[in-house]
Amino acid sequence: MRTTVGIIGAGPAGLLLARLLHGAGIDSVVLEARDRAYVEHRQRAGILEQGTVDVLRAAGAGARMDREGLRHDGIELRFGRRRHRVDFPALTGGRSVMVYAQTEVCRDLIALRFAEGGPLLFEAEALAVEGADTAAPRVRFRHQGREDVLECDYVAGCDGFWGVSRAAVPAGVSRVFERTYPFGWLGILADVPPSHDELVYARHDRGFALLSMRSPSVSRLYLQVPEGTEPEEWSDEDVWRELERRLGTADDWTLRRGPVTQKSVTPMRSYVHEPMRYGRLFLAGDAAHIVPPTGAKGLNLAVGDVVTLARALAHRKETGSDELLDAYSATCLRRVWQAERFSHDMTALLHRAPDATAFEDRLQLARLERITSSRAAETDLAEAYTGFPLG
Amino acid sequence: MRTTVGIIGAGPAGLLLARLLHGAGIDSVVLEARDRAYVEHRQRAGILEQGTVDVLRAAGAGARMDREGLRHDGIELRFGRRRHRVDFPALTGGRSVMVYAQTEVCRDLIALRFAEGGPLLFEAEALAVEGADTAAPRVRFRHQGREDVLECDYVAGCDGFWGVSRAAVPAGVSRVFERTYPFGWLGILADVPPSHDELVYARHDRGFALLSMRSPSVSRLYLQVPEGTEPEEWSDEDVWRELERRLGTADDWTLRRGPVTQKSVTPMRSYVHEPMRYGRLFLAGDAAHIVPPTGAKGLNLAVGDVVTLARALAHRKETGSDELLDAYSATCLRRVWQAERFSHDMTALLHRAPDATAFEDRLQLARLERITSSRAAETDLAEAYTGFPLG
Repeated sequence: MRTTVGIIGAGPAGLLLARLLHGAGIDSVVLEARDRAYVEHRQRAGILEQGTVDVLRAAGAGARMDREGLRHDGIELRFGRRRHRVDFPALTGGRSVMVYAQTEVCRDLIALRFAEGGPLLFEAEALAVEGADTAAPRVRFRHQGREDVLECDYVAGCDGFWGVSRAAVPAGVSRVFERTYPFGWLGILADVPPSHDELVYARHDRGFALLSMRSPSVSRLYLQVPEGTEPEEWSDEDVWRELERRLGTADDWTLRRGPVTQKSVTPMRSYVHEPMRYGRLFLAGDAAHIVPPTGAKGLNLAVGDVVTLARALAHRKETGSDELLDAYSATCLRRVWQAERFSHDMTALLHRAPDATAFEDRLQLARLERITSSRAAETDLAEAYTGFPLG
Repeated sequence: MRTTVGIIGAGPAGLLLARLLHGAGIDSVVLEARDRAYVEHRQRAGILEQGTVDVLRAAGAGARMDREGLRHDGIELRFGRRRHRVDFPALTGGRSVMVYAQTEVCRDLIALRFAEGGPLLFEAEALAVEGADTAAPRVRFRHQGREDVLECDYVAGCDGFWGVSRAAVPAGVSRVFERTYPFGWLGILADVPPSHDELVYARHDRGFALLSMRSPSVSRLYLQVPEGTEPEEWSDEDVWRELERRLGTADDWTLRRGPVTQKSVTPMRSYVHEPMRYGRLFLAGDAAHIVPPTGAKGLNLAVGDVVTLARALAHRKETGSDELLDAYSATCLRRVWQAERFSHDMTALLHRAPDATAFEDRLQLARLERITSSRAAETDLAEAYTGFPLG
């Protein structure tokens, strides 16, 4: 099998890249290890930055998002039983975010991919990227019980943190930057309308809590829990009670309860692999970097990467110049490190570190005070939350 | 001896408080352990916030400052051999800072105090504050070889971090918040015109450096050094060479050298004592809080404290109400914690922690990138540097 761009992984990065390349007249093959049902149902983040929304619309993938997505013009910060709303459009000159689950983005892109004729192979497990530093890289993969080879001009590694792409970068070239956090998020999905119409980020002495939503009838709620916590350790009643404690306010706000349909724990990690390019292999999305979920940046970073890559490949096709491909890693990493910084700082702002000193607790409160009392500090947050410029 | 307000310490806090009380028709006695020459010559910070400048002028202590002080409309950040100027007036609606050494502020206030008739006793060492929680607090002190007692209605503890005032707050009432840093500043004074007309804050892989000045003919320069470094470990030649390395730029900027007239090491510490009031004892300045020198906030915090205290004592005199005195600690601490936050964050932004991970190094650079590319982030810094609101 042969194509111009071999794309490993049919998450949002790989699927959007295939769509953008199609628009530029560049052929590609997408290989996805899982089956279609799995990809269309895995629960992931659902906050799309303004720039991500614009890219999806321009790619013709925005119709259902615009019908079913929830435009959010702000978030609420809670601390010390106080409430403070951050008004995005007022602070950023009109920018907002869209609540639309990643799994829905994937469904829309899969439908488009098949409508345009593919190719997109499910249950096609990439085994290795070979010859990344040659003019003829190859992806070995297994599909329907047989091993096969995809010969390409370029390989896009969009196969996430646990994928094989990153392993094709030699150890002497790779540099890894990482941080793990001594806590995770216990998340529930519940069949109940969200108790607030925007996301609520709460800092509490007992730990962080987040009120979020999947739709007008489905709530998504999170609690900071110690690293290593198993979901079964928390009964539904425990979860609701703890959410009430941490999200509680001085006024008469109440948390609506409903049937819990899913309960899971997400670990927290910051991770960057440099460079994001090796020869003709380009890493994109979680294959190259992970952020803790606090700033909702993971999906948006993946979109930024593949927009940059599609643009560089189109430039190469049109002009014969490798200039943008050569700049790919540095271009992406500027944005990646801003998102890493923001995600780390939002995490540190709101979570209770188990070893935090009394001095650090007070600093945390002083930072929240600053954000809620300085338009400049609040704008800095609003700009980062609604998204850094693409490319 | 008896007075309304017994003031322990003739640093800027104690001296300015005495001046402000005099203006409000409230009598006070200032006790200072050291002699006049010592107080008029000890080297300390010299960056006055806009609000501090305004207060000194309003107190009639601004004439020489306005003649000899250097108004600074910005600072320069250096990292990766790049230079970035932060323009204070453009970002803050006209605010700036004044370079005028603390020792000069003290000289001016001492001269005013004697002109208005004192009393200000040098070599009067406070031994203890007694009865702070009664209506008749007393300061025991030793002057000219004899022990004496100052009977007061109120005591202002302006005697710095090592003073006796704080010890009068019972352990069960005190809460201490602190952080020490694993590095200090090696500072030199040199008889050479400053090599740049504004302060230069440099982040370098080898550590932080600061170019500052005392006057148009005297440079003040600092290097981050490991905790416990002795000044003698560094020859003048070593210091100049290291400053050149850390302050070096991509253009043709050069560091002017001159005779080094002083060399010392300053440790770095963050410290807050809560509450700042116990009964009729009011802590002000370094007696209640210490900041690392990176944000130049120490003197300015002391000024904020005594402005708040003078206003509260005048209010009490005029109305008989204790309302503002009761609010003193909470009022000051709001501003103190903002300064602690800023000083900590500026320190973390620019210094190389000996145990910093590669991830933390990249975050530090991403923060500097953010400040130099977002007007909001830069404004946040400029607002904090030029000063938080008084009172």
